[in-house]
Amino acid sequence: MSSISKKYGERVENFSNKAARELLSLIERKKTNLSLALDVTTKREFLEIADKVGPYICLLKTHIDILVDFDQDLIDQLKELRAKHDFLIFEDRKFADIGNTVKYQYSKGIYKIVEWADITNAHPLPGDGIVSGLKEVGLSLGRGLLLLAEMSSKGSLATGAYTEAAIEMARRHKDFVIGFIAGRKLICNDDEDFIVMSPGVGLDASKDGLGQQYKTPRSVIFENGSDIIIVGRGIYGKDKDVATEAQRYRDAGWNAYLERLTN
Amino acid sequence: MSSISKKYGERVENFSNKAARELLSLIERKKTNLSLALDVTTKREFLEIADKVGPYICLLKTHIDILVDFDQDLIDQLKELRAKHDFLIFEDRKFADIGNTVKYQYSKGIYKIVEWADITNAHPLPGDGIVSGLKEVGLSLGRGLLLLAEMSSKGSLATGAYTEAAIEMARRHKDFVIGFIAGRKLICNDDEDFIVMSPGVGLDASKDGLGQQYKTPRSVIFENGSDIIIVGRGIYGKDKDVATEAQRYRDAGWNAYLERLTN
Repeated sequence: MSSISKKYGERVENFSNKAARELLSLIERKKTNLSLALDVTTKREFLEIADKVGPYICLLKTHIDILVDFDQDLIDQLKELRAKHDFLIFEDRKFADIGNTVKYQYSKGIYKIVEWADITNAHPLPGDGIVSGLKEVGLSLGRGLLLLAEMSSKGSLATGAYTEAAIEMARRHKDFVIGFIAGRKLICNDDEDFIVMSPGVGLDASKDGLGQQYKTPRSVIFENGSDIIIVGRGIYGKDKDVATEAQRYRDAGWNAYLERLTN
Repeated sequence: MSSISKKYGERVENFSNKAARELLSLIERKKTNLSLALDVTTKREFLEIADKVGPYICLLKTHIDILVDFDQDLIDQLKELRAKHDFLIFEDRKFADIGNTVKYQYSKGIYKIVEWADITNAHPLPGDGIVSGLKEVGLSLGRGLLLLAEMSSKGSLATGAYTEAAIEMARRHKDFVIGFIAGRKLICNDDEDFIVMSPGVGLDASKDGLGQQYKTPRSVIFENGSDIIIVGRGIYGKDKDVATEAQRYRDAGWNAYLERLTN
Protein backbone atom coordinates (compact mmCIF):
# COMPACT_ATOMS: atom_id res chain seq x y z
CA MET A 1 0.00 0.00 0.00
CA SER A 2 1.43 3.39 -1.03
CA SER A 3 2.22 5.90 1.71
CA ILE A 4 -0.37 8.22 0.16
CA SER A 5 -3.21 5.99 1.37
CA LYS A 6 -1.58 5.11 4.70
CA LYS A 7 -2.19 6.83 8.03
CA TYR A 8 0.63 8.99 9.39
CA GLY A 9 1.01 6.63 12.35
CA GLU A 10 1.36 3.58 10.11
CA ARG A 11 4.27 5.20 8.34
CA VAL A 12 6.45 5.48 11.46
CA GLU A 13 7.91 2.04 10.76
CA ASN A 14 9.10 3.21 7.32
CA PHE A 15 11.75 5.42 8.94
CA SER A 16 14.86 4.73 10.98
CA ASN A 17 15.43 8.46 11.57
CA LYS A 18 14.42 9.62 15.05
CA ALA A 19 13.01 13.02 14.00
CA ALA A 20 10.88 11.44 11.25
CA ARG A 21 9.48 8.82 13.63
CA GLU A 22 8.66 11.43 16.26
CA LEU A 23 7.01 13.73 13.74
CA LEU A 24 4.74 11.07 12.26
CA SER A 25 3.73 9.81 15.73
CA LEU A 26 3.00 13.36 16.83
CA ILE A 27 0.84 14.10 13.78
CA GLU A 28 -1.16 10.94 14.41
CA ARG A 29 -1.87 11.63 18.11
CA LYS A 30 -2.40 15.40 17.76
CA LYS A 31 -4.38 15.15 14.52
CA THR A 32 -2.73 18.06 12.79
CA ASN A 33 -0.56 18.27 9.69
CA LEU A 34 -0.15 22.03 10.03
CA SER A 35 3.26 23.70 10.30
CA LEU A 36 3.43 27.35 11.26
CA ALA A 37 6.02 29.45 9.40
CA LEU A 38 6.79 31.96 12.14
CA ASP A 39 8.50 34.82 10.31
CA VAL A 40 8.47 37.65 12.84
CA THR A 41 11.45 39.72 13.89
CA THR A 42 11.05 40.18 17.66
CA LYS A 43 11.33 37.67 20.48
CA ARG A 44 8.11 38.95 22.11
CA GLU A 45 5.97 38.39 19.00
CA PHE A 46 7.71 35.09 18.30
CA LEU A 47 7.00 33.58 21.71
CA GLU A 48 3.50 35.04 21.91
CA ILE A 49 2.41 33.60 18.56
CA ALA A 50 4.16 30.27 19.15
CA ASP A 51 2.28 29.90 22.44
CA LYS A 52 -1.09 30.74 20.89
CA VAL A 53 -0.65 28.55 17.81
CA GLY A 54 1.22 25.72 19.55
CA PRO A 55 -1.90 23.63 20.28
CA TYR A 56 -2.78 23.38 16.58
CA ILE A 57 0.51 22.50 14.91
CA CYS A 58 2.81 19.52 14.51
CA LEU A 59 5.83 21.59 13.55
CA LEU A 60 7.04 25.13 14.20
CA LYS A 61 9.06 26.43 11.26
CA THR A 62 11.54 29.12 12.24
CA HIS A 63 13.89 31.62 10.59
CA ILE A 64 15.98 32.16 13.68
CA ASP A 65 18.25 34.61 11.85
CA ILE A 66 15.61 37.31 11.39
CA LEU A 67 15.04 37.88 15.13
CA VAL A 68 16.64 41.15 16.11
CA ASP A 69 16.77 40.32 19.83
CA PHE A 70 17.72 36.67 19.65
CA ASP A 71 19.35 35.29 22.79
CA GLN A 72 19.80 31.98 24.59
CA ASP A 73 16.69 32.66 26.66
CA LEU A 74 14.63 32.58 23.48
CA ILE A 75 15.89 29.06 22.77
CA ASP A 76 15.14 28.00 26.35
CA GLN A 77 11.60 29.36 26.12
CA LEU A 78 11.13 27.81 22.69
CA LYS A 79 12.10 24.41 24.07
CA GLU A 80 9.58 24.89 26.90
CA LEU A 81 6.85 25.66 24.37
CA ARG A 82 7.80 22.58 22.37
CA ALA A 83 7.27 20.43 25.47
CA LYS A 84 4.13 22.27 26.58
CA HIS A 85 2.32 22.03 23.24
CA ASP A 86 3.92 18.88 21.79
CA PHE A 87 5.39 20.06 18.51
CA LEU A 88 8.75 19.69 16.78
CA ILE A 89 10.97 22.53 15.57
CA PHE A 90 12.08 22.98 11.96
CA GLU A 91 14.69 25.65 11.32
CA ASP A 92 14.16 26.64 7.70
CA ARG A 93 17.83 27.47 7.18
CA LYS A 94 17.97 26.41 3.54
CA PHE A 95 21.64 25.45 3.80
CA ALA A 96 23.20 25.96 0.40
CA ASP A 97 26.98 25.77 0.73
CA ILE A 98 29.70 23.14 0.46
CA GLY A 99 29.91 20.39 3.09
CA ASN A 100 32.76 21.84 5.10
CA THR A 101 30.94 25.18 5.51
CA VAL A 102 27.43 23.92 6.31
CA LYS A 103 28.84 21.68 9.01
CA TYR A 104 29.99 24.81 10.85
CA GLN A 105 26.85 26.81 10.04
CA TYR A 106 24.72 24.00 11.47
CA SER A 107 26.65 23.43 14.69
CA LYS A 108 28.59 26.63 15.44
CA GLY A 109 28.00 30.37 15.44
CA ILE A 110 25.52 32.13 17.67
CA TYR A 111 22.58 29.93 16.74
CA LYS A 112 23.94 26.38 17.12
CA ILE A 113 20.95 25.15 15.12
CA VAL A 114 21.71 21.45 15.55
CA GLU A 115 21.24 21.76 19.32
CA TRP A 116 17.56 22.77 19.22
CA ALA A 117 16.10 22.18 15.74
CA ASP A 118 14.71 18.66 15.28
CA ILE A 119 14.59 19.21 11.54
CA THR A 120 16.39 21.52 9.13
CA ASN A 121 16.61 21.73 5.34
CA ALA A 122 19.13 22.12 2.56
CA HIS A 123 19.29 22.76 -1.15
CA PRO A 124 20.73 19.80 -3.07
CA LEU A 125 22.45 22.33 -5.36
CA PRO A 126 26.06 21.94 -4.11
CA GLY A 127 26.01 18.13 -4.55
CA ASP A 128 26.09 15.29 -2.02
CA GLY A 129 28.74 16.99 0.12
CA ILE A 130 26.10 19.26 1.66
CA VAL A 131 24.21 16.27 3.03
CA SER A 132 27.39 14.55 4.20
CA GLY A 133 28.53 17.70 6.02
CA LEU A 134 25.22 18.19 7.82
CA LYS A 135 24.91 14.49 8.60
CA GLU A 136 28.31 14.49 10.30
CA VAL A 137 26.91 16.70 13.06
CA GLY A 138 23.15 16.02 12.94
CA LEU A 139 22.59 12.29 12.67
CA SER A 140 24.05 11.28 16.01
CA LEU A 141 21.72 13.79 17.70
CA GLY A 142 18.67 12.24 16.02
CA ARG A 143 18.11 15.18 13.67
CA GLY A 144 16.44 14.93 10.27
CA LEU A 145 17.01 16.80 7.00
CA LEU A 146 14.61 17.87 4.26
CA LEU A 147 15.89 18.52 0.75
CA LEU A 148 14.35 21.39 -1.19
CA ALA A 149 13.19 19.60 -4.33
CA GLU A 150 10.88 22.40 -5.47
CA MET A 151 10.17 25.99 -4.44
CA SER A 152 6.82 27.79 -4.38
CA SER A 153 8.12 31.12 -5.71
CA LYS A 154 7.66 32.44 -9.23
CA GLY A 155 10.44 31.52 -11.67
CA SER A 156 11.90 28.83 -9.41
CA LEU A 157 14.71 26.87 -11.07
CA ALA A 158 14.07 23.81 -8.88
CA THR A 159 12.17 21.90 -11.54
CA GLY A 160 12.59 18.95 -13.90
CA ALA A 161 16.05 17.40 -13.80
CA TYR A 162 16.90 19.45 -10.71
CA THR A 163 13.99 17.94 -8.78
CA GLU A 164 14.95 14.47 -10.01
CA ALA A 165 18.50 15.01 -8.74
CA ALA A 166 17.12 15.99 -5.33
CA ILE A 167 15.17 12.72 -5.19
CA GLU A 168 18.23 10.66 -6.09
CA MET A 169 20.28 12.47 -3.46
CA ALA A 170 17.65 11.74 -0.82
CA ARG A 171 17.70 8.05 -1.75
CA ARG A 172 21.45 7.95 -1.19
CA HIS A 173 21.08 9.33 2.36
CA LYS A 174 17.92 7.72 3.72
CA ASP A 175 19.20 7.58 7.29
CA PHE A 176 19.31 11.38 7.49
CA VAL A 177 17.17 12.79 4.67
CA ILE A 178 13.59 12.26 5.85
CA GLY A 179 11.77 14.06 3.09
CA PHE A 180 11.34 17.03 0.81
CA ILE A 181 10.14 20.56 0.57
CA ALA A 182 7.96 20.33 -2.53
CA GLY A 183 4.49 21.11 -3.80
CA ARG A 184 3.49 17.50 -4.25
CA LYS A 185 4.31 13.89 -3.47
CA LEU A 186 7.38 13.10 -5.57
CA ILE A 187 7.74 9.32 -5.24
CA CYS A 188 4.89 6.86 -5.51
CA ASN A 189 6.69 3.54 -5.00
CA ASP A 190 5.16 1.43 -2.26
CA ASP A 191 8.52 0.53 -0.80
CA GLU A 192 9.98 3.96 -0.13
CA ASP A 193 8.64 6.76 1.98
CA PHE A 194 9.63 10.40 2.34
CA ILE A 195 7.71 13.12 4.19
CA VAL A 196 6.69 15.99 1.91
CA MET A 197 6.13 19.47 3.31
CA SER A 198 4.60 22.23 1.17
CA PRO A 199 5.13 25.96 1.70
CA GLY A 200 3.18 28.69 -0.01
CA VAL A 201 -0.15 27.53 1.41
CA GLY A 202 -2.94 30.06 1.93
CA LEU A 203 -6.74 30.08 2.03
CA ASP A 204 -7.20 33.75 1.16
CA ALA A 205 -4.28 35.34 -0.76
CA SER A 206 -2.90 34.09 -4.08
CA LYS A 207 0.46 35.89 -4.08
CA ASP A 208 2.65 38.48 -2.33
CA GLY A 209 4.56 41.33 -3.98
CA LEU A 210 7.88 39.45 -4.11
CA GLY A 211 7.07 36.37 -6.18
CA GLN A 212 5.45 34.06 -3.60
CA GLN A 213 2.47 32.09 -4.96
CA TYR A 214 -0.16 30.42 -2.73
CA LYS A 215 -2.08 27.14 -3.00
CA THR A 216 -4.91 25.83 -0.78
CA PRO A 217 -4.51 23.10 1.87
CA ARG A 218 -6.87 20.80 -0.04
CA SER A 219 -4.97 21.11 -3.31
CA VAL A 220 -1.69 20.41 -1.55
CA ILE A 221 -2.78 17.48 0.67
CA PHE A 222 -5.65 15.86 -1.23
CA GLU A 223 -4.83 16.58 -4.85
CA ASN A 224 -1.03 16.66 -4.68
CA GLY A 225 -0.39 14.09 -1.95
CA SER A 226 1.83 16.26 0.23
CA ASP A 227 1.97 15.46 3.97
CA ILE A 228 2.35 18.79 5.78
CA ILE A 229 1.05 22.26 4.96
CA ILE A 230 3.28 25.19 5.88
CA VAL A 231 1.35 28.38 6.56
CA GLY A 232 2.77 31.74 7.56
CA ARG A 233 1.18 35.09 6.87
CA GLY A 234 -2.22 33.41 6.42
CA ILE A 235 -2.26 32.78 10.17
CA TYR A 236 -0.59 35.78 11.80
CA GLY A 237 -1.00 38.44 9.11
CA LYS A 238 -2.49 41.84 9.83
CA ASP A 239 -5.77 41.85 11.82
CA LYS A 240 -5.83 38.06 12.18
CA ASP A 241 -6.87 36.23 15.34
CA VAL A 242 -4.01 33.77 15.25
CA ALA A 243 -5.64 30.95 17.24
CA THR A 244 -8.80 31.10 15.11
CA GLU A 245 -6.80 31.11 11.88
CA ALA A 246 -4.57 28.28 13.09
CA GLN A 247 -7.63 26.13 13.87
CA ARG A 248 -9.05 26.94 10.45
CA TYR A 249 -5.88 25.82 8.68
CA ARG A 250 -5.50 22.77 10.95
CA ASP A 251 -9.03 21.67 10.08
CA ALA A 252 -8.57 22.32 6.38
CA GLY A 253 -5.33 20.33 6.32
CA TRP A 254 -6.67 17.44 8.39
CA ASN A 255 -9.92 17.16 6.47
CA ALA A 256 -7.98 17.07 3.22
CA TYR A 257 -5.96 14.18 4.68
CA LEU A 258 -9.08 12.30 5.78
CA GLU A 259 -10.54 12.81 2.31
CA ARG A 260 -7.34 11.35 0.85
CA LEU A 261 -7.53 8.28 3.10
CA THR A 262 -11.06 7.44 2.03
CA ASN A 263 -10.43 7.83 -1.70
CA MET B 1 37.44 45.55 -26.27
CA SER B 2 36.16 42.69 -24.11
CA SER B 3 36.46 43.06 -20.33
CA ILE B 4 38.80 40.07 -20.36
CA SER B 5 41.55 42.12 -21.98
CA LYS B 6 40.82 45.32 -20.05
CA LYS B 7 42.49 46.49 -16.87
CA TYR B 8 40.43 46.35 -13.69
CA GLY B 9 40.56 50.12 -13.41
CA GLU B 10 39.28 50.62 -16.95
CA ARG B 11 36.20 48.56 -16.11
CA VAL B 12 34.99 50.90 -13.33
CA GLU B 13 33.02 52.91 -15.87
CA ASN B 14 31.09 49.79 -16.90
CA PHE B 15 29.27 49.76 -13.55
CA SER B 16 26.76 52.07 -11.91
CA ASN B 17 26.80 50.04 -8.69
CA LYS B 18 28.87 51.64 -5.92
CA ALA B 19 30.33 48.41 -4.51
CA ALA B 20 31.42 47.25 -7.97
CA ARG B 21 33.10 50.55 -8.72
CA GLU B 22 34.91 50.60 -5.38
CA LEU B 23 36.07 47.02 -5.77
CA LEU B 24 37.52 47.50 -9.26
CA SER B 25 39.27 50.73 -8.23
CA LEU B 26 40.68 49.03 -5.16
CA ILE B 27 42.01 46.06 -7.14
CA GLU B 28 43.72 48.44 -9.56
CA ARG B 29 45.48 50.56 -6.91
CA LYS B 30 46.33 47.68 -4.54
CA LYS B 31 47.33 45.28 -7.32
CA THR B 32 45.62 42.23 -5.88
CA ASN B 33 42.76 40.10 -7.10
CA LEU B 34 42.92 37.83 -4.05
CA SER B 35 39.94 37.32 -1.77
CA LEU B 36 40.46 35.54 1.55
CA ALA B 37 37.73 33.09 2.58
CA LEU B 38 38.04 33.44 6.34
CA ASP B 39 36.26 30.38 7.71
CA VAL B 40 37.31 30.28 11.36
CA THR B 41 34.98 29.99 14.33
CA THR B 42 36.43 32.35 16.94
CA LYS B 43 36.65 36.13 17.00
CA ARG B 44 40.28 36.05 18.09
CA GLU B 45 41.42 33.92 15.14
CA PHE B 46 39.19 35.87 12.77
CA LEU B 47 40.60 39.28 13.65
CA GLU B 48 44.19 38.01 13.89
CA ILE B 49 44.15 36.44 10.42
CA ALA B 50 42.23 39.35 8.86
CA ASP B 51 44.86 41.76 10.17
CA LYS B 52 47.77 39.65 8.90
CA VAL B 53 46.28 38.96 5.48
CA GLY B 54 44.61 42.37 5.02
CA PRO B 55 47.54 43.96 3.15
CA TYR B 56 47.36 41.36 0.38
CA ILE B 57 43.66 41.13 -0.43
CA CYS B 58 40.99 43.13 -2.21
CA LEU B 59 38.09 41.39 -0.52
CA LEU B 60 37.54 39.60 2.78
CA LYS B 61 34.98 36.83 2.40
CA THR B 62 33.18 36.00 5.64
CA HIS B 63 30.79 33.41 7.02
CA ILE B 64 29.68 35.52 9.94
CA ASP B 65 27.32 32.80 11.16
CA ILE B 66 30.03 30.32 12.11
CA LEU B 67 31.66 32.57 14.73
CA VAL B 68 30.78 31.24 18.18
CA ASP B 69 31.58 34.51 19.97
CA PHE B 70 30.17 36.99 17.47
CA ASP B 71 29.28 40.39 18.92
CA GLN B 72 28.96 43.99 17.79
CA ASP B 73 32.57 44.66 18.75
CA LEU B 74 33.66 42.15 16.11
CA ILE B 75 31.85 44.18 13.46
CA ASP B 76 33.41 47.40 14.76
CA GLN B 77 36.89 45.89 14.64
CA LEU B 78 36.21 44.40 11.21
CA LYS B 79 35.28 47.83 9.89
CA GLU B 80 38.51 49.25 11.36
CA LEU B 81 40.52 46.57 9.57
CA ARG B 82 38.70 47.34 6.33
CA ALA B 83 39.78 50.98 6.61
CA LYS B 84 43.31 50.16 7.80
CA HIS B 85 44.10 47.69 5.02
CA ASP B 86 41.81 48.98 2.25
CA PHE B 87 39.66 45.97 1.41
CA LEU B 88 35.94 45.37 0.95
CA ILE B 89 33.83 42.84 2.83
CA PHE B 90 31.88 40.05 1.16
CA GLU B 91 29.50 38.08 3.38
CA ASP B 92 29.15 34.73 1.68
CA ARG B 93 25.60 34.23 2.93
CA LYS B 94 24.35 32.33 -0.12
CA PHE B 95 20.81 33.60 0.33
CA ALA B 96 18.46 30.96 -1.03
CA ASP B 97 14.91 31.80 0.04
CA ILE B 98 11.92 33.72 -1.29
CA GLY B 99 12.10 37.52 -1.55
CA ASN B 100 10.12 38.33 1.55
CA THR B 101 12.35 36.13 3.73
CA VAL B 102 15.77 37.14 2.38
CA LYS B 103 14.89 40.80 2.85
CA TYR B 104 14.67 40.13 6.59
CA GLN B 105 17.67 37.81 6.68
CA TYR B 106 19.76 40.51 4.98
CA SER B 107 18.72 43.46 7.14
CA LYS B 108 17.44 42.06 10.45
CA GLY B 109 18.45 39.46 13.00
CA ILE B 110 21.63 39.57 15.02
CA TYR B 111 23.93 40.04 12.05
CA LYS B 112 22.31 42.89 10.07
CA ILE B 113 24.48 41.91 7.11
CA VAL B 114 23.44 44.83 4.92
CA GLU B 115 24.94 47.28 7.41
CA TRP B 116 28.55 46.09 7.09
CA ALA B 117 28.93 43.81 4.06
CA ASP B 118 29.71 45.69 0.84
CA ILE B 119 28.89 42.60 -1.16
CA THR B 120 26.81 39.49 -0.54
CA ASN B 121 25.61 36.64 -2.72
CA ALA B 122 22.49 34.66 -3.52
CA HIS B 123 21.40 31.57 -5.38
CA PRO B 124 19.16 32.35 -8.37
CA LEU B 125 17.20 29.18 -7.54
CA PRO B 126 14.03 30.79 -6.07
CA GLY B 127 13.51 33.05 -9.11
CA ASP B 128 13.78 36.83 -9.53
CA GLY B 129 12.02 37.53 -6.21
CA ILE B 130 15.23 36.78 -4.31
CA VAL B 131 17.06 39.59 -6.12
CA SER B 132 14.12 42.00 -5.75
CA GLY B 133 13.89 41.31 -2.02
CA LEU B 134 17.61 41.87 -1.41
CA LYS B 135 17.67 44.92 -3.68
CA GLU B 136 14.88 46.56 -1.67
CA VAL B 137 17.23 46.88 1.29
CA GLY B 138 20.69 46.80 -0.28
CA LEU B 139 20.72 49.07 -3.31
CA SER B 140 20.11 52.36 -1.52
CA LEU B 141 23.09 51.57 0.74
CA GLY B 142 25.36 51.05 -2.26
CA ARG B 143 25.64 47.30 -1.78
CA GLY B 144 26.27 44.81 -4.57
CA LEU B 145 25.07 41.24 -5.14
CA LEU B 146 26.74 38.25 -6.75
CA LEU B 147 24.66 35.42 -8.16
CA LEU B 148 25.96 31.88 -7.73
CA ALA B 149 26.00 30.69 -11.33
CA GLU B 150 28.24 27.68 -10.66
CA MET B 151 29.61 25.90 -7.60
CA SER B 152 33.04 24.32 -7.17
CA SER B 153 31.84 21.26 -5.25
CA LYS B 154 31.50 17.74 -6.64
CA GLY B 155 28.08 16.93 -8.12
CA SER B 156 26.97 20.58 -8.22
CA LEU B 157 23.60 21.03 -9.96
CA ALA B 158 24.45 24.62 -10.95
CA THR B 159 25.32 23.78 -14.53
CA GLY B 160 23.93 24.13 -18.05
CA ALA B 161 20.46 25.67 -18.18
CA TYR B 162 20.72 26.61 -14.50
CA THR B 163 23.85 28.68 -15.15
CA GLU B 164 22.18 30.27 -18.18
CA ALA B 165 19.19 31.25 -16.04
CA ALA B 166 21.54 32.88 -13.54
CA ILE B 167 23.05 34.97 -16.33
CA GLU B 168 19.63 36.09 -17.58
CA MET B 169 18.59 37.01 -14.04
CA ALA B 170 21.73 39.12 -13.60
CA ARG B 171 20.99 40.94 -16.85
CA ARG B 172 17.54 41.87 -15.54
CA HIS B 173 19.03 43.46 -12.40
CA LYS B 174 22.24 45.15 -13.54
CA ASP B 175 21.95 47.97 -11.04
CA PHE B 176 22.34 45.56 -8.13
CA VAL B 177 23.81 42.30 -9.49
CA ILE B 178 27.48 43.09 -10.07
CA GLY B 179 28.69 39.65 -11.01
CA PHE B 180 28.85 35.93 -10.44
CA ILE B 181 30.34 33.22 -8.36
CA ALA B 182 31.56 30.87 -11.08
CA GLY B 183 34.61 28.99 -12.25
CA ARG B 184 35.02 31.01 -15.42
CA LYS B 185 34.02 34.13 -17.30
CA LEU B 186 30.43 33.51 -18.39
CA ILE B 187 29.73 36.36 -20.83
CA CYS B 188 32.08 37.51 -23.55
CA ASN B 189 30.09 40.34 -25.15
CA ASP B 190 32.06 43.57 -25.34
CA ASP B 191 29.14 45.65 -24.17
CA GLU B 192 28.33 43.98 -20.88
CA ASP B 193 30.49 43.44 -17.85
CA PHE B 194 30.09 41.33 -14.72
CA ILE B 195 32.74 40.60 -12.09
CA VAL B 196 33.46 36.89 -11.73
CA MET B 197 34.80 35.45 -8.49
CA SER B 198 36.00 31.85 -8.26
CA PRO B 199 36.09 29.78 -5.07
CA GLY B 200 37.81 26.45 -4.70
CA VAL B 201 41.24 27.85 -5.55
CA GLY B 202 44.35 26.17 -4.15
CA LEU B 203 48.01 25.78 -5.08
CA ASP B 204 48.65 22.61 -3.11
CA ALA B 205 45.57 20.47 -2.38
CA SER B 206 43.20 19.09 -5.03
CA LYS B 207 40.18 18.28 -2.80
CA ASP B 208 38.89 18.03 0.76
CA GLY B 209 36.96 15.12 2.29
CA LEU B 210 33.52 16.70 1.73
CA GLY B 211 33.38 17.19 -2.03
CA GLN B 212 35.34 20.43 -2.49
CA GLN B 213 37.59 20.45 -5.59
CA TYR B 214 40.49 22.89 -6.10
CA LYS B 215 41.86 24.73 -9.14
CA THR B 216 45.01 26.86 -9.45
CA PRO B 217 45.03 30.69 -9.64
CA ARG B 218 46.46 30.58 -13.14
CA SER B 219 43.80 28.23 -14.49
CA VAL B 220 41.07 30.38 -12.98
CA ILE B 221 42.36 33.85 -13.99
CA PHE B 222 44.39 33.24 -17.13
CA GLU B 223 42.71 30.22 -18.70
CA ASN B 224 39.13 30.76 -17.53
CA GLY B 225 38.95 34.56 -17.48
CA SER B 226 37.68 34.91 -13.92
CA ASP B 227 38.45 38.17 -12.07
CA ILE B 228 38.99 37.27 -8.42
CA ILE B 229 40.42 34.16 -6.77
CA ILE B 230 38.88 33.10 -3.47
CA VAL B 231 41.31 31.18 -1.27
CA GLY B 232 40.62 29.79 2.19
CA ARG B 233 42.37 26.84 3.75
CA GLY B 234 45.28 27.25 1.33
CA ILE B 235 46.25 30.38 3.26
CA TYR B 236 45.47 29.72 6.91
CA GLY B 237 45.42 25.92 7.02
CA LYS B 238 47.46 23.93 9.52
CA ASP B 239 51.13 24.98 9.92
CA LYS B 240 50.85 27.82 7.39
CA ASP B 241 52.47 31.22 7.77
CA VAL B 242 49.43 33.17 6.73
CA ALA B 243 51.18 36.33 5.50
CA THR B 244 53.63 34.31 3.41
CA GLU B 245 50.85 32.21 1.91
CA ALA B 246 48.72 35.28 1.22
CA GLN B 247 51.59 36.93 -0.66
CA ARG B 248 52.13 33.73 -2.62
CA TYR B 249 48.47 33.61 -3.71
CA ARG B 250 48.34 37.36 -4.38
CA ASP B 251 51.37 37.07 -6.66
CA ALA B 252 49.99 33.99 -8.43
CA GLY B 253 46.64 35.70 -9.03
CA TRP B 254 48.15 39.00 -10.17
CA ASN B 255 50.70 37.39 -12.45
CA ALA B 256 47.95 35.35 -14.09
CA TYR B 257 46.06 38.61 -14.70
CA LEU B 258 49.13 40.31 -16.20
CA GLU B 259 49.63 37.28 -18.42
CA ARG B 260 46.02 37.60 -19.55
CA LEU B 261 46.43 41.29 -20.37
CA THR B 262 49.42 40.65 -22.61
CA ASN B 263 47.81 37.77 -24.54
